[in-house]
Amino acid sequence: MKSLKELADLTGSEVKGDTQLQVSDVATLQDAKEGQISFVSNPKYKKQLDTTKASAVILSSKMASAYNGNALINDDPYLTFAKVVNAFHKRAIPKANIHPSAVIAKDSIIGKNVNIAANVVIDSAVNIGDNSVIGAGTVIEKGSVLGSNALIHPNVTIYSNTQIGTNIIIHSGTVIGSDGFGFAPQKDKSWYKILQIGNVVIGDDVEIGANTTIDRAALGSTIIENGVKLDNQIQIAHNVKIGSLTIIAGSVGIAGSTTIGERCQIGGAVAIAGHLNIADDVIITGRSMVISSIKESGVYSSGIATEDNRKWRRNAARFRHLDDMAKQIKELKIQLNLNP
Amino acid sequence: MKSLKELADLTGSEVKGDTQLQVSDVATLQDAKEGQISFVSNPKYKKQLDTTKASAVILSSKMASAYNGNALINDDPYLTFAKVVNAFHKRAIPKANIHPSAVIAKDSIIGKNVNIAANVVIDSAVNIGDNSVIGAGTVIEKGSVLGSNALIHPNVTIYSNTQIGTNIIIHSGTVIGSDGFGFAPQKDKSWYKILQIGNVVIGDDVEIGANTTIDRAALGSTIIENGVKLDNQIQIAHNVKIGSLTIIAGSVGIAGSTTIGERCQIGGAVAIAGHLNIADDVIITGRSMVISSIKESGVYSSGIATEDNRKWRRNAARFRHLDDMAKQIKELKIQLNLNP
Amino acid sequence: MKSLKELADLTGSEVKGDTQLQVSDVATLQDAKEGQISFVSNPKYKKQLDTTKASAVILSSKMASAYNGNALINDDPYLTFAKVVNAFHKRAIPKANIHPSAVIAKDSIIGKNVNIAANVVIDSAVNIGDNSVIGAGTVIEKGSVLGSNALIHPNVTIYSNTQIGTNIIIHSGTVIGSDGFGFAPQKDKSWYKILQIGNVVIGDDVEIGANTTIDRAALGSTIIENGVKLDNQIQIAHNVKIGSLTIIAGSVGIAGSTTIGERCQIGGAVAIAGHLNIADDVIITGRSMVISSIKESGVYSSGIATEDNRKWRRNAARFRHLDDMAKQIKELKIQLNLNP
Repeated sequence: MKSLKELADLTGSEVKGDTQLQVSDVATLQDAKEGQISFVSNPKYKKQLDTTKASAVILSSKMASAYNGNALINDDPYLTFAKVVNAFHKRAIPKANIHPSAVIAKDSIIGKNVNIAANVVIDSAVNIGDNSVIGAGTVIEKGSVLGSNALIHPNVTIYSNTQIGTNIIIHSGTVIGSDGFGFAPQKDKSWYKILQIGNVVIGDDVEIGANTTIDRAALGSTIIENGVKLDNQIQIAHNVKIGSLTIIAGSVGIAGSTTIGERCQIGGAVAIAGHLNIADDVIITGRSMVISSIKESGVYSSGIATEDNRKWRRNAARFRHLDDMAKQIKELKIQLNLNP
Repeated sequence: MKSLKELADLTGSEVKGDTQLQVSDVATLQDAKEGQISFVSNPKYKKQLDTTKASAVILSSKMASAYNGNALINDDPYLTFAKVVNAFHKRAIPKANIHPSAVIAKDSIIGKNVNIAANVVIDSAVNIGDNSVIGAGTVIEKGSVLGSNALIHPNVTIYSNTQIGTNIIIHSGTVIGSDGFGFAPQKDKSWYKILQIGNVVIGDDVEIGANTTIDRAALGSTIIENGVKLDNQIQIAHNVKIGSLTIIAGSVGIAGSTTIGERCQIGGAVAIAGHLNIADDVIITGRSMVISSIKESGVYSSGIATEDNRKWRRNAARFRHLDDMAKQIKELKIQLNLNP
Repeated sequence: MKSLKELADLTGSEVKGDTQLQVSDVATLQDAKEGQISFVSNPKYKKQLDTTKASAVILSSKMASAYNGNALINDDPYLTFAKVVNAFHKRAIPKANIHPSAVIAKDSIIGKNVNIAANVVIDSAVNIGDNSVIGAGTVIEKGSVLGSNALIHPNVTIYSNTQIGTNIIIHSGTVIGSDGFGFAPQKDKSWYKILQIGNVVIGDDVEIGANTTIDRAALGSTIIENGVKLDNQIQIAHNVKIGSLTIIAGSVGIAGSTTIGERCQIGGAVAIAGHLNIADDVIITGRSMVISSIKESGVYSSGIATEDNRKWRRNAARFRHLDDMAKQIKELKIQLNLNP
């Protein structure tokens, strides 16, 4: 139980209404019961304010007039909500323990207060920082280093010589350090494998979702800088560099040797070609296709949205004649003595 | 061995030709040997009827005249084929057994007649229903519940507090209940993690392919209703809801808080943005990009098909001037005193 | 240490400059230190020749004049680089050993000089060829066969009855042989599972990246021929056939029963529909959408590149009227008595 006043103090917000109102937990507008606090950050959900059973709501000052009940007013309601969640909930951290079924090389270095779950495999010369948690079935290969406070969920694979900073979170099924996709064509059309002798280097405060893959460099390092957040099922090829505080949504693919700047926001299912440079502070909307470098910060997009299938068939068929259409327009303008 | 008569009775079909013909197994038109039965459902393969060595074929009544040999006639040849496969083959179900290498928390509840393979890890307060099979290396975290007849293939990860109904099938590498991708931006441009305190709730008769990911909700539940079928490498973000009997092909991504209706069919590699509503009975063709809600049932599409690279370069370059082209057409119509 | 002469002999190159120059290792132009050799294959990096600290560079004869220092001249600098990497580095192959925690069925056949890591599970009637390496946590199901020199990284899952040739490399998290996505619709709109009774057959010299999925056939086999190279997070559906020496980049999806020819090159994030035939020697550029068969070799493309978000909004909105625009142009030409 926290009073609205306590939550306001915790989050730097103002109370509108009963400062002593007791709140038991946080929930969505739709699901909240009496005694719970909710929030509106996306205006799409504003109309749910009329029907919510929440006892208080987190709102921006702009939206404050739309709600008569008790409220926490903060111009960043989403961040305030995030902090209120933390006031009621803590991540469950297992106690320090090394499960007897874990297979740990004698020459590995395991920090203080570490939890290693069942069936974990830790290879030679691995170094695990203090207060880390390694989930069941995770495999960490030779010479890899994890900083303190690592949270590695079950069934992760970290290949050899990966270097990871502090406060990393890696979700299940993710693979770090697999071979880059490098093959040189030979005269007989077969492919000669290029040994991938580089590694992956990941900074501090990085979170990586489930079933994401980050390949090791051919030479040098694939680099994920501090504070980067990666969602699920992202594919990052060899020698990519992702600048600090960049955030990337699910199902994105980034081809080899591309550099992404700092503080970029990349939407879901974007595909980025290889050997490009993306500037700092670039936003790329979902499902875009990036095939040339982006030199200035800004918002970039591509893609065409769904429409009725019959209309789409007609429009998509015309696309194949777009160049002809442009030429015909030019010809028409010449006929009419217009500036072509 | 089954006679054509037996197969007809099993599947509600009619026999054309020799009712006592003995059939030993089912195979494709191309691979079938004497004594085997095959089928045509996709008209693309109709011409293989002329050369197949199958002793009998499953056909719709419309196609019956295209084939002179013995046949099972049914207006749903694909479903009939599926049932004939089951007449000859059964899924291999391992006997009840708990492998000694499995690590099972004492306070978990394991039903009757369950098979738990090597190196499975079952955490505290997990409940596994009767007749379930848990494949090698699978990890099921604290408090998760699986109904009866679960078939979990190897190396699956189920995070804490996941609720799953009866008759679930989950293929290898799939991750259920990983953290939703929720971060609030802070003034210094760093990202504040929003603790994902919800869970995943999955109904009965659901099948989930390999390396698919379903994130737990931020608040409340990510919901997969009864009878949903999900293919491989699908990414389902937090707080998504998928209505019953919806079927989704491989490599699809669905962003957070989107609701998909019942009985929808979503083609491969479709990307669906967040906070949308897709109505019941919607069909979305492969590789479409969905960025607004779909309010009526129907078939929806987007995307442009491959063409010769040089033509594509010209057409795609013109796309960037499409708005200009439209304005020029309008101007031309004005010049000619046409209704613009 | 190798002399430039030795490297020239190894790679069939010519030395420009000091044949006795001693080289210690290979590095990128940017990272190379004195005593190291580097290479230029992509002209984008040519200007780095002015500033590199490498003691020698691998160059094509065309580029030779752009660099005054010591060089290996070869008209295939990329392949030469690949061979030079191998002159200094060897893949670390663990010694023959079977870890005591591995769970290996008594009736499996394990070849000579095999390394089986911790927590591997090998089921009944599996056959592992000589000199193979099976990474920690990998599961190989009943009746599967791996030829000699297999390198299976950790946490791979190979379902039953998979047949794999010699020299396979499979990266972590990959799933081979999961059920194809086959369901027949029933009258009540529920889906009847089609038992997937086929398997996966993979040839020699194949490499498969991390978190890729290859489904078993409904009937018959899903086939990956000799020398195919597959990157990460590729989805290959049931009954697909991929011709020999074809190379496929990351995040590609190929739907059921499609046949890809030999020596094709498929770029990242391409989506290919089902039941198609792609000819030999076809190149498909990244992010293309393939919805009809390709009958001749050549380069094929689709997709529209990112642009400024405001311009994109205008152009993409016009796309929905493309068919109207084409009709208006035709009408204008008629008005002007031009050949429509």
